Order: sequence, then structure tokens, then C-alpha cells
Amino acid sequence: MAITGSYPGLLLTRCRLGADLPMSEMRVPRGTRDFGPSEMRQRRHLEAKMRSGFERFAYQEVQTPTFEHLDLFTAKSGQGIVSELYDFLDKGGRALALRPELTAAVMRFYHESMTVEPKPIKLFYYGNCFRYDRPQKGRYREFWQMGCELIGPDTPEAVGEVIALGVTLLRSAGVKDLVARVGHLEVLNGALAVAGWPSSADRAGLMRLIDKWDRDGVVAALDAAGVTAEARDWLLSLHEAHDLEGLRAICAAAPEGADAAAIERVTAATDALAQVWASAVALGADESALRIDALIARGLDYYTGVVFEMDAPALGAEKQLLGGGQYDLSGVFGGQPVPTCGFGLGFDRTLVAIEAEAESGTALEARHLDVFVAPIGDAARPRALALAAELRAGGARTEVDLMRRNPGKLLKAAAGRNARFAILLGDKELEADAASVKDLASGEQASVPLAEVGAFVAERVSRDSLQS
Amino acid sequence: MAITGSYPGLLLTRCRLGADLPMSEMRVPRGTRDFGPSEMRQRRHLEAKMRSGFERFAYQEVQTPTFEHLDLFTAKSGQGIVSELYDFLDKGGRALALRPELTAAVMRFYHESMTVEPKPIKLFYYGNCFRYDRPQKGRYREFWQMGCELIGPDTPEAVGEVIALGVTLLRSAGVKDLVARVGHLEVLNGALAVAGWPSSADRAGLMRLIDKWDRDGVVAALDAAGVTAEARDWLLSLHEAHDLEGLRAICAAAPEGADAAAIERVTAATDALAQVWASAVALGADESALRIDALIARGLDYYTGVVFEMDAPALGAEKQLLGGGQYDLSGVFGGQPVPTCGFGLGFDRTLVAIEAEAESGTALEARHLDVFVAPIGDAARPRALALAAELRAGGARTEVDLMRRNPGKLLKAAAGRNARFAILLGDKELEADAASVKDLASGEQASVPLAEVGAFVAERVSRDSLQS
Repeated sequence: MAITGSYPGLLLTRCRLGADLPMSEMRVPRGTRDFGPSEMRQRRHLEAKMRSGFERFAYQEVQTPTFEHLDLFTAKSGQGIVSELYDFLDKGGRALALRPELTAAVMRFYHESMTVEPKPIKLFYYGNCFRYDRPQKGRYREFWQMGCELIGPDTPEAVGEVIALGVTLLRSAGVKDLVARVGHLEVLNGALAVAGWPSSADRAGLMRLIDKWDRDGVVAALDAAGVTAEARDWLLSLHEAHDLEGLRAICAAAPEGADAAAIERVTAATDALAQVWASAVALGADESALRIDALIARGLDYYTGVVFEMDAPALGAEKQLLGGGQYDLSGVFGGQPVPTCGFGLGFDRTLVAIEAEAESGTALEARHLDVFVAPIGDAARPRALALAAELRAGGARTEVDLMRRNPGKLLKAAAGRNARFAILLGDKELEADAASVKDLASGEQASVPLAEVGAFVAERVSRDSLQS
Repeated sequence: MAITGSYPGLLLTRCRLGADLPMSEMRVPRGTRDFGPSEMRQRRHLEAKMRSGFERFAYQEVQTPTFEHLDLFTAKSGQGIVSELYDFLDKGGRALALRPELTAAVMRFYHESMTVEPKPIKLFYYGNCFRYDRPQKGRYREFWQMGCELIGPDTPEAVGEVIALGVTLLRSAGVKDLVARVGHLEVLNGALAVAGWPSSADRAGLMRLIDKWDRDGVVAALDAAGVTAEARDWLLSLHEAHDLEGLRAICAAAPEGADAAAIERVTAATDALAQVWASAVALGADESALRIDALIARGLDYYTGVVFEMDAPALGAEKQLLGGGQYDLSGVFGGQPVPTCGFGLGFDRTLVAIEAEAESGTALEARHLDVFVAPIGDAARPRALALAAELRAGGARTEVDLMRRNPGKLLKAAAGRNARFAILLGDKELEADAASVKDLASGEQASVPLAEVGAFVAERVSRDSLQS
């Protein structure tokens, strides 16, 4: 508009605000990210694929607020979590925190509003989470999680379904190199009892060493707790069992004189694990991705049975894409115990895994524009705007020149936007009641009667989108 | 699993956490909401419709972090905004705030990373925003906004496109009763000059009175500032001009003796408005929804020309769905002036408008389940799981019984989940290598060979989804 800038308020604004703010205040906050158009296309594409996967398994989406009462997270995860939280007091004095993960909130929602719903309740979610952490490669202070909770059933096929869902989602997202490790906490707990681990020893410390597989540390802890060399070696052999047969062989080779009830715990848990494994495979989990891992400890003490983690090994230290298992949070919320199985999936890391595996030739960058309409000269402008409206109504993603560029710059702009077609409309075309339609891939140009341009483009654009 | 609950950690958890927390801490925070499955289906449906609209207009999605440096918002909107913000210090001592709207962040992103991109830059966004406000009907502390920014062009067709986009989005979302009011700040500023409004008077106060149309307050303010009765009545007549002709008639009837340059300002702005109007209509804005409203003041002082607001009048005090206009924020970020036009759209309120208009007969609740697979007896269970996997791979949203219900409860469960088909698989069916497929709408039941069930269901389910 000609008079832009003459509004006095604008000058006032410039003057008051100036450019004397520290530049850092005008930057994206440390540890967070802006996503541009091509990143957003990738993210929305993966989100849609994942959502379709959850929906095929008949999980339904729920959404909870971005912040919760701080106590929700400390009740679930202990006071230690506060050092990693974005916690604050709101103007009413409430202690709130940005959510560090989504299970606590979804289960809060369940306990607040859904306990009377018929079981099973199958929920999925997608949302941003926050962690005050030292920013480093692949770790951000705001990150995205997907996940699910299957509430109610206490059967092997319920747990098998959640595992099958996780494997299916990651496979269909394009993660080719995938390892899904499945364990059972009672195998581990029973094995510790078999080995004579004293109940007075530091179990949590041992679990941390096992979880990151610090073999020397584990050996030292077992020795310090008075576990015999034979029992220790038997326990360490669990690390080599990658299938059910291997695990069964270890059960059979328990150290002499071990407590029979403890051995029975390990055997029963192995049987349970076998049933879950069979259900997961029947429900579509690719068996070539599945491994037994009896040493998955998961950090939190509300897990109750089967636990699992899924990795993209190529990603090294940041390889874990998904983690979950059976748990029960009724201790946090009160009420009846409720068997639950679920997982959380790192959305950002899954994207990294897919990108790392994509062949360098395959452009993830999809076209966002079907048609660029180029009015040549002022007389053609109103007709060009109307043509753009018609093309858009027909479903074509259409840009029309808004910069009043000259003819030379117009074609260059169309090419730069990576459109499929450029449509030129000048005095010559208006006289002939036709438009010049240029296929920017082949370079072919055709004169198409104006009344037929909509159908001409719609047919070719829908053919394109069927092929992609 | 049989051994669920025997894990000692769980008891420890219950004991430590107990149920003695104040119950309010386990509730959704005041002023925020949980969204259940059927709400999420509606929200995702509207989101997809809106996203498709933005994409047809060739706008591209961007996303910024949920929090920003506090100074970003005070620089854009003044210190007064702090009382409405969720602001806090992070553990590194940074003053941050949850975003109260998205334009500041998107323009921060533009100035930080996109200034060298070829113009026009056409961006859209969808995100949650936060305001510490007294919760009341239709106003929440966490709410969702969509919007767009068109950066670069300074032409009537650029502004017209943004208006056409807003009208098209709301119409295609299903808002039938829609009023899109369009004004120009220079009409209002010029008219105040024509009326002899003194530059020393409280302009911001007058704007607030005009914005909420407190007619008595406006009259009192004009009188107090020494505006003549004739000039005052002329100014008030702007409130009655709802089309360009009416506005032109008012320009022509300026009070005798008024400043000629001021009259010229009003006339020039009216001409500019006419060009924007014509472009918006050519680009598909439904003219029956458009109104002139020269008294749109918009609160903020960075608007530079055309401004607009779109309402669903049936919603009363909370009727405004969308607001925007031409602006320039280069004063906040430094750098070259950059003409921009954009709008923000209240996503939650748009949902309310659609629901209010939906006929009570039309169920917004869509089906989420195509098939319920019911294994009858343990022998059929593995085959039922495999059938569910096959149906899911074929695209059918499928639930398989995970509760080991008895046959009587199974059919009831299938009906309760509102599935399209129930598939029964028992000893009898296994023997015949066939499944009983029951159409839950018609009640018809057919025996279908197991090898053909996938195709049988896929054909009927895809036919359904084409019809919906």
C-alpha cells in the first residue's frame, strides 16, 4: 500500500523499542529449535504415518495440558527429577512444571476422568516435553514424544500387542536397522535371589550399573555383596542370552544349592515372556527384530513385569528410540490397581534414525507447490487472481505473483519455487481467452482455453499425487 | 501376567507416595483442559481441513519453541503484557515466558534465519499459547492458535490474499454465519485529523473506547478534546458505513473547513481499501461475508494499514474468530523495514462456532473402529491375533479381544466399541477354515474363508471411507 509507513504509531514503536536490546534476547532460547518449512513437512509426514499406525491398532488419541502440578511428576518419579524440570510458580502461587514426559499426565487424566470406561482403554498421544539438560547433539530442551497406554487387560496378548505396535510403527516409519529387546523384571529379580543377592545391599545402585552395562562395576558390586564366584558368573551369563532357548538353558544351569523358590520365579517369568513373545509375533512384530534381554532394568520402580526397549544401533549412544513395559501407577493416584502397558517413543530421534538410513539419493524434500500463476502486466492481474482461486478450490496448491514482478523475473520465480506448472497470463493470452501452461519439468508449453485450465491442472496434479 | 504385582518395588512405590497428597495436585491445572478421544478426533479433523486450506494457498508451516525469552514479548507488546504471561526463570537464570501468541516468535524466526530467502515468504503455524487469565466460559489458560504471515509484498493483492485465505478457511471449516470486517487505520487516523482531534489528547484511550464501541464514552472523549458537534457527528457516522459506497459518501461529506490534507488521507486510504477488497473477492473471499468497518482500531501499535476481524456473530461476546492486518515488526528486531500481513485465528473458538451451527442431528462423532476380532476359546486365540495383524496391514482399524472375555461378552464389547464388523473365530470356524463375519449395522452374518477375510473387509472398509 502506498501509505504504508505513514502511520505515526510505527515510528513511536521503533523509537521506544530500538535495537539496543541484547541480541541474544531475540534469538531462539538455548537448547530449543525453530523448524522451517522443509523440516515441518518431514515431521508432519512422519506424524501422519505414526498416527495411521496407532489408529489401525485401534488406539485413540488424547491430549493433556503442557504443564501440570509439579507434584504429579515428583509423585511418579521422585524428588530427584526436579533438577531436570522447568518448574515455576504461576501468578496464583501454584507450583507447576512443564511436562518432562507424557505417561504421568495421561494416567492422571485416566484416573481423573476415565476409570469408569469399559476396558481395555487404548490411548495414544503425541506432544512436546521439556527437560532442563545440558544441550548436546541430539538432545534438546524441548523435544517430542509419541506413545501409548493400554489400560485394563492383564494378558500376554495385551503386552504382545504393545510390542507389536512399537515394532510396526518404527518399521513402517522406515527404520530398517531395528533391535527390539524384551525382558521381564522377574527374571532379573528372581536371578538376583538365585545368586543370593542380600536384600540389605544397594539394589538401585546395582540396577544402574546393569542398565548401562558397566560389567566391571557389576562384578565389583556382586563381589562386595558377598555373591559367590559361581553365582556371579551364572548371573553374568544372562547378558549372553538373546533368545528364549538361551534363557531357558540358563534357568536350567542355576548354581547348585540355589533357593528352589527363586529358581521357580525365574522359570515362571521366562514362561510368561515366551507367551508375550508368541503373541507379539502373531500380532505382526517382525521376529527378526526381536531379542531377549533379561538385563533391561528401566530406571523407574513402577514397572511390574515385561519391559522392552527398541534401538536403532547405527545411532550409537543415542540409539534408543522407544522404551516401555508393564506398570501400575495406581499407587500414585490411589484407587484400584490397574494393569497397564505402554511405551514412549522419541519422535525427534526416530526422525534422525530415518534420515541416517535414507539413501543419499532419495530426496525427503517433497514439493509443496503445484502451480505458479504469473500475470503479465496489470490488465491480466484480476483474471490471474480469479484463476488462482479456481485452481485452489479444485485442490491445487497454487501461488499467484503478489510482487508485481516483471515477466523475466516471473518465470525465474516460478522455477525457484519448484512448482509443477507455471501459468502465464498476459494481454495476448487474454485476447485468445486462453492461458499458456508450462510444464516446468518437461519444458513443454501448451495454450489451454481459460475455461479448461482448472480441469487440465487438476487432472495432472491428482495423477502426480497418486504416484507419490 | 500371572506374576504381576509380585514385584516388590511396586509396594515400595505405593507406600512412599501414598494417597495422602492433596487431591487437587492430581487434577488438571486450573484453566486448562484434557481432551478425550472424541474431542481429539474433532480437533484433528479441523486441523487437517485448515492445513489443507493453507497449503492450497501455498503457505508453508513453521514451528517455534513453546517458550521464548520474556523480552521478545515485552518488546512486541509492552511491559503491560507481563501480568498476563506465564513467565519464569529457568535454572540458568534466563527470563523466559510461555508464548501468549505466535506472531512474535514467527517473526523472530524470520529475522533470525529467513531474511535472505526470496520474497514473498508465506508461512503458517499451529500451536498452543498461554495466558494467565481468569478462567471463564470459552477462555482457557492454554489455547490453540493458527495463523499466517505473508512477508515481503506491499501490494493490494497481497493483503487481499490474506483476507481471502481467512474467509476461505473459516467457510471450509463449516462456519456459515460469518462476518469479515475490513478497515484501514489511515481512514481512522485521517478522520480524526479531519475532525480536529488534537495531537496532545489521549489517543490510546480513545482507541480503546472505539475498539469496544462505547459510543457514549467516545462522544464524551471527543467533546472533552474540543471536537465540534458537527465534526463529532461526522466521525460517528463512520460506524454506519458497511460498504465502500457508504464510506465514500462519508468522505464526500466532510465537515466544512476541515483540513484538505486530512481529507485527502481518508480518501487515499479508502481507495487503497477498495483495491484490497477487489483483490480479496477475485481471490475467492465470499463477498456476502465482507463488510467495511472503518473503526477497527486493533490494540497494538505496529499495525500499518489494512486491518480486519472475522466474527461468528452467534457467539456473542466471544464472537471474534480471527484478527489481523498489515504490520511491520522490523522496529522490534532491527534491520530493514519489511511489509508483512498476517492473521491469528482462535482454533478453540472456531470449533465452538462450528459446533454451535451444526444441526443437532449431525453426529460429529466419527467411527474409529472398523473391525473387532473375537476369538472364542483359547484354541482360536493365536489365529485371531494373526488375523488382526493381517487386517491392520491392509489398512483396517482393528481391535482384537485382549481381555479373554466369554463369548456372550465379546459381541456386546464389539457393539459397544461401535465397530463396523465383528469377526468370530471359534473351534467350529477353525474346523471349517472360515470366520463368521457379522455386519453390525445390518445384522447380516456371513461365513468367509479365512484366506479371504482380509480382502472381504478391506473392500467394504475402503468403500465406507470413500462415502464419508
